[in-house]
Amino acid sequence: MNRIGSYTFSIEAGDVDIFGKYPLPVLVRKMLDCAGYHADERGWGLRHLNAGNCSWVLARAAIELENFPEIYDQIVIQTWVEDLNKHFSTRNFSFQNQKGEILGYARTVWSMIDLNTRKAVDLTVVSDISNHKVDKECPIDKPGKIGIVSCEPEYFHDVKYSDLDINGHVNTCKYVEHIINLFSSGIEQIVVLKRFDVTFLSESKLGDRLHFHRATASDHETQIEITGHNSRSICRAKITFKK
Amino acid sequence: MNRIGSYTFSIEAGDVDIFGKYPLPVLVRKMLDCAGYHADERGWGLRHLNAGNCSWVLARAAIELENFPEIYDQIVIQTWVEDLNKHFSTRNFSFQNQKGEILGYARTVWSMIDLNTRKAVDLTVVSDISNHKVDKECPIDKPGKIGIVSCEPEYFHDVKYSDLDINGHVNTCKYVEHIINLFSSGIEQIVVLKRFDVTFLSESKLGDRLHFHRATASDHETQIEITGHNSRSICRAKITFKK
Repeated sequence: MNRIGSYTFSIEAGDVDIFGKYPLPVLVRKMLDCAGYHADERGWGLRHLNAGNCSWVLARAAIELENFPEIYDQIVIQTWVEDLNKHFSTRNFSFQNQKGEILGYARTVWSMIDLNTRKAVDLTVVSDISNHKVDKECPIDKPGKIGIVSCEPEYFHDVKYSDLDINGHVNTCKYVEHIINLFSSGIEQIVVLKRFDVTFLSESKLGDRLHFHRATASDHETQIEITGHNSRSICRAKITFKK
Repeated sequence: MNRIGSYTFSIEAGDVDIFGKYPLPVLVRKMLDCAGYHADERGWGLRHLNAGNCSWVLARAAIELENFPEIYDQIVIQTWVEDLNKHFSTRNFSFQNQKGEILGYARTVWSMIDLNTRKAVDLTVVSDISNHKVDKECPIDKPGKIGIVSCEPEYFHDVKYSDLDINGHVNTCKYVEHIINLFSSGIEQIVVLKRFDVTFLSESKLGDRLHFHRATASDHETQIEITGHNSRSICRAKITFKK
C-alpha cells in the first residue's frame, strides 16, 4: 500500500461561503476525514483504536494556503506520516486543485490517549506506524507556539449539541468555526486569510461557557484564545492574513 | 438515465453526534447535496440555473426517520421528482442503510427564482423536469402547515460568517442546526426525534438578529418559529418525538 493517502472530492454549491470559497472550518473537517481514511486503511484508525479503548487527540495544527478551493473545484488532499516518537506523531497534508496546482499544505501533531485513564499512550508500541513514515516535502513552518491572550473576552459561546463529538467534547472543527466567526463584522478579512495555527490545551463539554479573547498583533496577524471556567485555557490560535 | 438518483456514502467518526448518530442538520445537508447531484446530472442543477441567473429555493420540507444512521454505517439516499407545476416542484427522498433497511423518507417543495428580480419563475418552462417525474412510494405525510408561535423568544443568534451561503443568505442547514441546538439542555430528547417539518418564509443576512420562539404543544411535539427585525417571520418548524 502506498504510504501517501490521496483523496479526491468535489466542492458543491452548498459547501462554499459567501465568497464562493471553501471555508476554513469545512476544509479542516475534510482534512481530518482524510487523516481518518489514511489511518483506517492502515490499521490504526479510530475504529481500531476505540476497540482497544484508545483514541487520537489533535494537539497542534498549522494550515497555510495561497488560495482556497472554490465552488465546483475538484480537490485532492494528500496525507502522510512525517515522524513519530513515544509522545507525538506528525501528519502532513497537501491540497491540490484539478489543474494540479498546489493550493497549500498543513502540518498536524497528534498524541494518543487511553480513554479510561485519559493518559497518554506510548505511540511507538501501536502497530507499525513508524514503517509508514514518508520523507516528503511540506514547505510550511511547523505549528507555532502561541502565548496567552490577556485582554478581556469579546464574545461568549455556551457549548451546544452541534458542537459535540462522539466523545462528548467540543469538536475541533467547531472551535475553528467559532474562531473564524469572530471576523463576521469585518468579513472581507476572511478572504485574505493565509495561515491558521492552533494549539489545543484542554477539553470542553456541553453547557461550558467559552470565552473568546482576541489580540491584534499587527495588520496581518491576530491571536485568539478560548478560555473556560476559572480562566482555564482551552485553545489558542494565530491567524495570519496576506500582506 | 434512471429517473431516480441513488447516492451511497459512509458515515465517518467525525460526522456523528455525542450519541454516535448522524445529526439531523448534517443529514439535511447531505440530502440537499444529493438533490444537487440529481438535478446537475439532468441539466437543471444550480450550476445550469445560475448561468441563466435563476436559483432553486427550498420552501418546505418534512423528514421522518424511524432510526438515524450511525457511525460507520454506509447509507444510500435515493431522490426523485414527484410532481411539478408552474409554482412548485416536489422532490422526495428515501434513506436506507447497508442492510437494505429503510430508515425513513423526506419530502421537499421547491420554487425557482430569478436572481435579479427575486421573483418566482414558471417552473414548467425550465427544460424537461416534468419528463423526470416518478410515481414512487413515499409513505410519510406532506410537510405540514405550521402556525405562528406567539410566546416570547428564548434565544437570540446574530447571523455570522459560517451561517451564510454563496447568495449571502443563511443556509438552510444552519437554521436546522440552530433549531436543534435549542434542545441542548435536554439533549436526550434529540435521540427520540422522529420527524422534522420546516417552512421557510423569508431570508436573513449577515448581522441580522434571529429570535427563537418555542412552544411545547405536547410531550411529543414542539413548534419553533424564528423571527427577525419587526417580528418578520423567517422560518417555522415542528418537531415530533417518538411516543
